[in-house]
Amino acid sequence: MSIPETMKALLLKNDGYAAQPSGTALEAMEPYVEAGTIAVPKPEGRQVLINVALASINPSDVMFVKGMYGQPRAQGRPAGFEGVGEVVAAGDDPAAQALVGKRIAFATGLTNWGSWAEYAVAEAPACIPLLDTVRDEDAAAMIVNPLTALAMLGIVREEGEKAFVITAGASQLCKLMIAVAKDEGLRPIAIVRRDEQIAMLKEMGAAHVLNADAPEFAKQLSAVLREEKPRIFLDAVTGPLAGTIFNAMGKGARWIIYGRLDPATTPIPEPGQLIFMRKRVEGFWLTEWMRSMGPERRMEAVIEAQKRFSDGRWATDVTAVVPLADAVSRVPAELAKPNGKVFIAP
Amino acid sequence: MSIPETMKALLLKNDGYAAQPSGTALEAMEPYVEAGTIAVPKPEGRQVLINVALASINPSDVMFVKGMYGQPRAQGRPAGFEGVGEVVAAGDDPAAQALVGKRIAFATGLTNWGSWAEYAVAEAPACIPLLDTVRDEDAAAMIVNPLTALAMLGIVREEGEKAFVITAGASQLCKLMIAVAKDEGLRPIAIVRRDEQIAMLKEMGAAHVLNADAPEFAKQLSAVLREEKPRIFLDAVTGPLAGTIFNAMGKGARWIIYGRLDPATTPIPEPGQLIFMRKRVEGFWLTEWMRSMGPERRMEAVIEAQKRFSDGRWATDVTAVVPLADAVSRVPAELAKPNGKVFIAP
Repeated sequence: MSIPETMKALLLKNDGYAAQPSGTALEAMEPYVEAGTIAVPKPEGRQVLINVALASINPSDVMFVKGMYGQPRAQGRPAGFEGVGEVVAAGDDPAAQALVGKRIAFATGLTNWGSWAEYAVAEAPACIPLLDTVRDEDAAAMIVNPLTALAMLGIVREEGEKAFVITAGASQLCKLMIAVAKDEGLRPIAIVRRDEQIAMLKEMGAAHVLNADAPEFAKQLSAVLREEKPRIFLDAVTGPLAGTIFNAMGKGARWIIYGRLDPATTPIPEPGQLIFMRKRVEGFWLTEWMRSMGPERRMEAVIEAQKRFSDGRWATDVTAVVPLADAVSRVPAELAKPNGKVFIAP
Repeated sequence: MSIPETMKALLLKNDGYAAQPSGTALEAMEPYVEAGTIAVPKPEGRQVLINVALASINPSDVMFVKGMYGQPRAQGRPAGFEGVGEVVAAGDDPAAQALVGKRIAFATGLTNWGSWAEYAVAEAPACIPLLDTVRDEDAAAMIVNPLTALAMLGIVREEGEKAFVITAGASQLCKLMIAVAKDEGLRPIAIVRRDEQIAMLKEMGAAHVLNADAPEFAKQLSAVLREEKPRIFLDAVTGPLAGTIFNAMGKGARWIIYGRLDPATTPIPEPGQLIFMRKRVEGFWLTEWMRSMGPERRMEAVIEAQKRFSDGRWATDVTAVVPLADAVSRVPAELAKPNGKVFIAP
């Protein structure tokens, strides 16, 4: 395959971090990225160059382009943390060379050559050769969400817990967790914002699904917490709702924040609970988890993810596949729709 | 010594916990305790009966009588967690019998026979036979604050840190920590509310003392944090000030809450820091720490405390010694004075 000199890509408009934090909803693309043309990079060492077939948009991408992710932006370079495509060139490293010609899922990590582009750069260890049975839509979203889901379920297991609480219960990530939890006999307590999500998530394997906007929510929550006694709270939302849930949980509760959907102030409603009930508040970041894990543990999780997508135990719900040229105008509205994932097709 | 049938004591007016949390300032005694007469208890097993010479008033006592401490109140029983006095009777246990006639510092723990009384009950392992060189004022406050100080400094040491941040910097507890920190070459950054406390705490060994109400506070704080890079934040205050300090601290910061002086809402200003900067929020409770430590470690800390009070490296600043009969009317105003400790003399 001949590689062109230049390519189309969605380029970051800002450097570094946002001066002021904001919510993780993407109100518009224009302040953060623009469609442009840029030279196709040359992979070096362990890097590979990927002809991108499909790129996913994760909440972490949104936080990144807004300057709120734990990694600085590089102005003028393509955004996008993961995707699927074919390796068309590689650096000298044998592990990278071995991937040439293969269809892979990839994460761009710290390369600054993101997946929202016709070509992207990834390190060989962040590439996963794919079985033919894995769809592009699943492969393009096979790293960030699945690894996060498996890593966070690992926390539940390590604590010896059965029940655990999740907010943004109908997100792709939570759906992956619910499916695995069902197989393992764990009991997810999913918090959602729409009644129609209740039956869907119960069907998938949630032990309880509560609508936080229902008038009876506080009562239902306290009944469910009394019954299930969860100690792990995996929270993508923060803000007052998350504070209320943490406050209602029992002794030893761990509020693990991995997302920030609500930009409102996040209160600790009763700090005395941290003193006398051994409660605590902490965070989870996939990048940090991957750093602290050995490669074996990461690879195990990746193989598990591919198996689950191959045999249909996991499936990615697709809201829209948006051509790269239309992304700036169309993506925010597509992302605002519930229950599915939005992709960019370069 | 002949033991009377009845005794005077300050008796709890409420059972269990407060329905609503409030601040840890003691606005008045009347809602919580009343002076009364009650039968002198009989010690059993490992218990000893102590003729109380002096009882201390700790922030934990205030939280307890208000129903905000992690231990339920028992209506009609004496309050008060620690004191000094002479053992006048004991249960059958040889360790308890061995204490009869001795002058001891004691903590009443879960006996429900508190120190704000002419006689109190403690378990033998919670009694410390005293050297003659230890003053009553130091002995009456020799367990709760000193062990908390040594335990929390242990956290700083275990983390391999030099600098650490403390709020309510002029409290007795913080002064104990500052004195030990000076000896060990640690660098306390004390946050206070009065300019006159700055020189006093620097003299004692604080590396920096900042007045949170000064107009330049935010700027000074950020300069000091940049210079010292503390990761441990030992917080007695909570509320917006504590949130501001935690927010300004760097990667890996641990906000360890052990008191709740400000009843205002406690915010986590930027929850993204918990995700990307490995920051976390947790609590410290002496009771829990003592449970998790072996008796050797506790005894080591107790011996260290007694030595420090004996040789003058530690000294308790006395605001007032209030007779038990005047306690209900006088204690709140005495507690409101800064820099010293208030005692009850039964």
